[in-house]
Amino acid sequence: MQVNPIQLFDAESSTFTYILAAPGSYDAVIIDPVDRHFTRDLAHIERLGLRLTHVLETHAHADHVTSAGRLREHTGAKACVPSGCDIPPAEVQLQDGDQIRFGLHEHIAVIHTPGHTAGSMCYLWRGNLFTGDTLLIDGCGRTDFQSGSSDSLYDSVTRKLFTLDDHVRVWPGHDYKGQSVSTIGWERRHNARLANRSREDFVALMAALDLPRPRMMDVAVPANRNLGLPHSV
Amino acid sequence: MQVNPIQLFDAESSTFTYILAAPGSYDAVIIDPVDRHFTRDLAHIERLGLRLTHVLETHAHADHVTSAGRLREHTGAKACVPSGCDIPPAEVQLQDGDQIRFGLHEHIAVIHTPGHTAGSMCYLWRGNLFTGDTLLIDGCGRTDFQSGSSDSLYDSVTRKLFTLDDHVRVWPGHDYKGQSVSTIGWERRHNARLANRSREDFVALMAALDLPRPRMMDVAVPANRNLGLPHSV
Repeated sequence: MQVNPIQLFDAESSTFTYILAAPGSYDAVIIDPVDRHFTRDLAHIERLGLRLTHVLETHAHADHVTSAGRLREHTGAKACVPSGCDIPPAEVQLQDGDQIRFGLHEHIAVIHTPGHTAGSMCYLWRGNLFTGDTLLIDGCGRTDFQSGSSDSLYDSVTRKLFTLDDHVRVWPGHDYKGQSVSTIGWERRHNARLANRSREDFVALMAALDLPRPRMMDVAVPANRNLGLPHSV
Repeated sequence: MQVNPIQLFDAESSTFTYILAAPGSYDAVIIDPVDRHFTRDLAHIERLGLRLTHVLETHAHADHVTSAGRLREHTGAKACVPSGCDIPPAEVQLQDGDQIRFGLHEHIAVIHTPGHTAGSMCYLWRGNLFTGDTLLIDGCGRTDFQSGSSDSLYDSVTRKLFTLDDHVRVWPGHDYKGQSVSTIGWERRHNARLANRSREDFVALMAALDLPRPRMMDVAVPANRNLGLPHSV
């Protein structure tokens, strides 16, 4: 049965954090937690009576600092990161096709989706796809820094994500318009950047965006490669 | 099985709107939709492939205007409101103990919880309690206008909500701190205003709050008594 995650928001960076609670057990996974909400996120886990077993990162973020390291220290959860994101302190270095098991019978499928960054991963759990900055609602992540590639993003989305079932729910890593969730079917048919667009058109569109450099990048990326911890671990 | 709702947020009034999707069917219910997000909310219903059958209001809001009337016009959904909230255009005037049925086997229990307003209702669906402004995460709604009563709110929360199962998830009508969800067990033990507090203490605490009058009140309350529509229906 499709069980929605709990969605939390950071208004400063418009980042979504997700808590996945395993039906029938107390075990839970958190995806892309934000450092400034460390206390808030722990409070949610406590209020819901959950035990955190895994902390997942979709990639090494450039716009906010993760709390993965602090959550691991505080709860004993395993830190799981994409193997291609250069985050050495994480004990689980994920590869495409891996399965993360938690709770009684839960498994999260790991899908390597290079494009926003070369190492970016999406996670699929019970018909819910956590897309990080790869696929956004009616949009996609930028591809102009940190090993980004529009060519790779086009392949990742059109060949790996748009081939999933129409009803799979898309839970993005960010939203800037107060939106929460979409579906693969809707994005495949209507996504303003990727639906019915050729690779050449997409690459040209992304190259023309001319976005400013992320304000937090020089701080966030090195911090996130250390799980958000200020010192080496 | 406990299936979380989809939670949407209005950053202007810090209001949560909820979409409840019936497992195994396309039918869905929306609770406390906000007028300025009419298009966003319809887009979510479309993206998720849902058919809206009911629009529920927890009370006649003083801080934002509902889109219930426009959603009804657009989708054919039934407008369901607390009978004590003086919202005559709604076709379903709910009473304490009513059940709203939707989808294949879904039912929403209607719980009359006077206090924030005399007519306020909470809604219980699959272990999820939608509390409107009656019970907030680590707080509660104000009781100093629009037929509010601290005495009544104390009874509603302590006798009707805190007697529900510990694991029932509390989905509030507002949050001002980036929080999403709590549980009855946590609120009964820790809620800063209501846990382990006598009626007299609670009434005195609420009387001492001295809150400013809601900026939107003179516009919002009459509009919400007409389901948010500008003209009589």
